[in-house]
Amino acid sequence: MARMSGWEHGFAAVDWGSTARRAYVLDADGRTIAEIEDEVGTLTIAKDRFAGEVKALRAQMGAMPMLLAGMVGSNRGWMEAPYVPCPASLPDIAAHLLWAEPKQTAIVPGVSLIEGNRGDVMRGEEVQVFGAHVLRPMEGRTLICHPGTHTKWIEMDGGTIVGFRTIMTGELFALLRKHSILADMLAGPVEPDAAFLRGVARGYGSGEMAAELFSIRAGLLLGIAPPAEAPAFASGLLIGCDLHTGLAAALPNEEILVLGRGSLTRLYAAAIRQCGFRTRDLDGATAFVAGMRAIAETIA
Amino acid sequence: MARMSGWEHGFAAVDWGSTARRAYVLDADGRTIAEIEDEVGTLTIAKDRFAGEVKALRAQMGAMPMLLAGMVGSNRGWMEAPYVPCPASLPDIAAHLLWAEPKQTAIVPGVSLIEGNRGDVMRGEEVQVFGAHVLRPMEGRTLICHPGTHTKWIEMDGGTIVGFRTIMTGELFALLRKHSILADMLAGPVEPDAAFLRGVARGYGSGEMAAELFSIRAGLLLGIAPPAEAPAFASGLLIGCDLHTGLAAALPNEEILVLGRGSLTRLYAAAIRQCGFRTRDLDGATAFVAGMRAIAETIA
Repeated sequence: MARMSGWEHGFAAVDWGSTARRAYVLDADGRTIAEIEDEVGTLTIAKDRFAGEVKALRAQMGAMPMLLAGMVGSNRGWMEAPYVPCPASLPDIAAHLLWAEPKQTAIVPGVSLIEGNRGDVMRGEEVQVFGAHVLRPMEGRTLICHPGTHTKWIEMDGGTIVGFRTIMTGELFALLRKHSILADMLAGPVEPDAAFLRGVARGYGSGEMAAELFSIRAGLLLGIAPPAEAPAFASGLLIGCDLHTGLAAALPNEEILVLGRGSLTRLYAAAIRQCGFRTRDLDGATAFVAGMRAIAETIA
Repeated sequence: MARMSGWEHGFAAVDWGSTARRAYVLDADGRTIAEIEDEVGTLTIAKDRFAGEVKALRAQMGAMPMLLAGMVGSNRGWMEAPYVPCPASLPDIAAHLLWAEPKQTAIVPGVSLIEGNRGDVMRGEEVQVFGAHVLRPMEGRTLICHPGTHTKWIEMDGGTIVGFRTIMTGELFALLRKHSILADMLAGPVEPDAAFLRGVARGYGSGEMAAELFSIRAGLLLGIAPPAEAPAFASGLLIGCDLHTGLAAALPNEEILVLGRGSLTRLYAAAIRQCGFRTRDLDGATAFVAGMRAIAETIA
């Protein structure tokens, strides 16, 4: 058991979301020596089964301390790690770890924002954001785009999250593809091609998603739009509307850090550039590991 | 059979949508003497079964001519009645009826719009619009709001449809209530109360639906919004975004004709008034019957 609490000998960093789980085994030097990815998301686990799931995961990964982040710390997860309010830096969240199992297993808190009567929350993205700062320290203001089911636009001041906004773009696109009157038309693949960029321009210009969507169906019915272009155009339209909000406060030609999974960051980066900004991409998993390593260092 | 083709002796007017069907039996004086409402929408009927359905309906309603409108005339309905392009008046659509059964059964065409590379279509609403004009002739410009699964904003010049725009508000609200991460929070009833009007103000101000929606979840998680208000606030938010587009070209204090089902028109009318415009409501079924009667008069 002595080794179990020895964070300096390595630990497991787990990105535990609603629908998926990615676990990284880090050695004493902070190198990733093993990875496990599965679909054991928090939504698939009853509250009283989490301890067992963690035990099973530890059996797979070796007897080592674990640091968990993401929805596992939400009210629908294992235990609720209360949000740290903005402005929030890495030391702030490291100071508020929730110890689910003494010395062995900690949960990273999310970050919250209350601005007038508008609230916002994040869980998991903050680790990637702080990891990005570890990998390449940010100076002054930096605007980060973290695309996903719920895209986050995050405003940094140095290494501190000073504000952010969540846009339900990915979830809305999935709902439209699966359940809407447009479902049949949106089934194909999406590439950052000309049709996608036309959608981006349309959405970025007006921001009026619900009003633009029906024109996809009408355009096909009237024969003025090619059916094969509908999925990319629709994706571009939603991402363009996302940018309409997310980039509202960006300066012309500002560099936006696009952080997350490559399949999404390449679409967002193409869209952001088309709207007149520069982009820098960073892989979310790389940033996550860097962030968890930096948090663990405050424990060891 | 002589009576079958005698439109002047009365006829049946059928509003045949995707999910519901409303049939009105009109006597020689144009009075509604019977109504049938059921859920035999066009989506529930295979293409080769429509003739049988019409026969069954005629058996219920008495052997009389039938005038059909709505999705029954779409490519997913019985037979496709090609759209009449804007500008379109009642005589224009009456001149393009599709005779599904010679002299006995006609389908009213929809209306289409092509404006630059944006297209739009309607089927069924045009009958209500022309009926509204029959009941109280419009002079000069009139802006009509027809709320529904796909809300239509229709610009009239006298009795002619000169432009329109479809906004998928009702469908998006249904998707969010049924399938989204907000589903649990949006289950309650919606009234045009203070929470609804707060949502309207938020949506009308920004038009940024996808960006505002997540704040409902965050507000509940952070305890800054009462759970009971979430359904009305969300409905107001979506309707407010709808108005952001639909009222963009309206003049201050302009009177908007709100046409459709009372359960929806009262929400939209309250929202439109809060945004600084006047409203006049008209029941969609009343307008539909008036429009079908006027179209039938061109046949008889």
